[in-house]
Amino acid sequence: MPKPGPHGGELALIERIRHDSAQRFVQRRSRFLMLGIGDDCAILRPPAGHEVLVTTDFTIEGRHFRRDWHSPESAGHRCLARGLSDLAAMGAMPMAAFLSLALPRSCKKSWIDRFFLGLRALGDRFSVPLAGGDTAESPTELIFADITLVGTAPAGRALRRSGARAGDVLYVTGQLGGSAAELDLLPSGRGLRVRGGEEDKHPQMFPEPRLAVGEALLRRGLAASCIDVSDGLSTDLAHLCRESEVAAEVDEAALPIHPLAGKLVRETALRAALHGGEDYELLFTAHAGVRVPRRIAGVAITPIGRIVRARAGKAAVMLVRADGTRGELKPGGWEHFRGISV
Amino acid sequence: MPKPGPHGGELALIERIRHDSAQRFVQRRSRFLMLGIGDDCAILRPPAGHEVLVTTDFTIEGRHFRRDWHSPESAGHRCLARGLSDLAAMGAMPMAAFLSLALPRSCKKSWIDRFFLGLRALGDRFSVPLAGGDTAESPTELIFADITLVGTAPAGRALRRSGARAGDVLYVTGQLGGSAAELDLLPSGRGLRVRGGEEDKHPQMFPEPRLAVGEALLRRGLAASCIDVSDGLSTDLAHLCRESEVAAEVDEAALPIHPLAGKLVRETALRAALHGGEDYELLFTAHAGVRVPRRIAGVAITPIGRIVRARAGKAAVMLVRADGTRGELKPGGWEHFRGISV
Repeated sequence: MPKPGPHGGELALIERIRHDSAQRFVQRRSRFLMLGIGDDCAILRPPAGHEVLVTTDFTIEGRHFRRDWHSPESAGHRCLARGLSDLAAMGAMPMAAFLSLALPRSCKKSWIDRFFLGLRALGDRFSVPLAGGDTAESPTELIFADITLVGTAPAGRALRRSGARAGDVLYVTGQLGGSAAELDLLPSGRGLRVRGGEEDKHPQMFPEPRLAVGEALLRRGLAASCIDVSDGLSTDLAHLCRESEVAAEVDEAALPIHPLAGKLVRETALRAALHGGEDYELLFTAHAGVRVPRRIAGVAITPIGRIVRARAGKAAVMLVRADGTRGELKPGGWEHFRGISV
Repeated sequence: MPKPGPHGGELALIERIRHDSAQRFVQRRSRFLMLGIGDDCAILRPPAGHEVLVTTDFTIEGRHFRRDWHSPESAGHRCLARGLSDLAAMGAMPMAAFLSLALPRSCKKSWIDRFFLGLRALGDRFSVPLAGGDTAESPTELIFADITLVGTAPAGRALRRSGARAGDVLYVTGQLGGSAAELDLLPSGRGLRVRGGEEDKHPQMFPEPRLAVGEALLRRGLAASCIDVSDGLSTDLAHLCRESEVAAEVDEAALPIHPLAGKLVRETALRAALHGGEDYELLFTAHAGVRVPRRIAGVAITPIGRIVRARAGKAAVMLVRADGTRGELKPGGWEHFRGISV
């Protein structure tokens, strides 16, 4: 069909991505990738007896990142981290990533290069090759990036949202609220420069997908259900309850608050931990009697509540406050930050 | 992170897509899909001894379709057809589709419904469930849709662009130039209303991915290399030649011109066939001596030229004109339609 005049940089961009990826591929000899960028499809070979897991996440400038807040490396890291976290939540091992990218004509080469640096640095750490995708010129001044992650898990054993039962203990990995807190603490109107090697102190800019924890939960048969905390604890716990047809109680005093959130006033910190989202920690349940270690793959595991029976007309999630009073915990990942929304 | 105020329709939209897909899933009992929309990932189970093929295609309003030219059904059909055609080009069988969709707030429910109708109608014909994806509000007035197709093929047997050898005969399925011709013939400024049951007469609005042909080429061991004609014969043949490190000759007189292109003046028709693109036919080669039938799965198969040895400094693709003269066939999928570009 008629298309805009050829985007000068498009073929060159594809070639560059391909060249870089091919180099990485040769270096890494990915065990799953049979054929990468350059044909009509990529070819993956999952281990025998394994299933294939697929997730896609659409990252839109202004909505999921801002060029004046997030460095290009952070934007690239975050795209991939969103997808990897979905695989982690099901206990899957990543095989390959695919990126569809629409870039404005005005986008500088250095921004693109640094975006891929951030994406690749995370991919390399988890041996995830960039195996394909699509590039196009964005007809607006905004960047659109859709990431697809393809992973693998032993057949029939992937962790699901739907496995929670009344009596299960509710756990969360790591700490909550750091991602939202980091934005709250951003120097107003300016992006944050993160020093190399200090990425782990920046849960908003460089969130850490919990792949090793998810994989261990599956392998050791510890988790009955699991979801990642991408939209906020209140929202994601509601998802888990709905899929499992159960209700839950969260103990406010037990919540592991991220040190960055600890710098905020108590009420704001709590809001960040309950509703902030983008922490990319795992929220999972274990049947009563299952011994869950306090650390898995070096990550703290904290019991924060319990699963109870769902009752018609009753709230799905209750918050038990430090003073013993109880109140409904409504899903509120987005509303609470509306005040500073982009 | 801070996000725009909740997009009222977003959760409802996800629920609707999920509900519709779940219904379809139950009806169809897809043999590959173990878990569809509603968890962190979808789960697919490829047949034993099979590999997994993945392709993504980014469809952007104004670039890949226009709301004043393409009906919503056509836009949905075309999104899915692009991905299915990539699987067809490798001889793969589709397992599931994933759609990431950014919609402007102003987008009418009826448009969205009809978009999914078009997408689903094609998916149903090839038993491809919509197994996941992502939805977001587009920060512009434009629609962005990224489709991921996941398919399967017997291990080590997928058709590749890189298998052509000097001496191979070059074939194309169906007819060329119809897609570009249909746009040329569009009543100016108005979309085309396609009557139900007449989709096969509209190669631009409802292109037909050649899945059965691709699968037969693989199963019967007929093709040495294969690619789909998405960017135009001249461009895609150049891709195939580059990946196979060969050159090619195309016989102008042998080209199967689509009847719609036949309505144009001869030179325009030829340009549409050579450079128009979006025909989604398969371009493949077979080693000399391999008997390729003139029809496969009901689709005409036409020999249109041959593969020759690549020679340094010489053109990769030559066109042999009806009068016997020869000239270089430069990749020109886009430039030739620049005059009527969107």
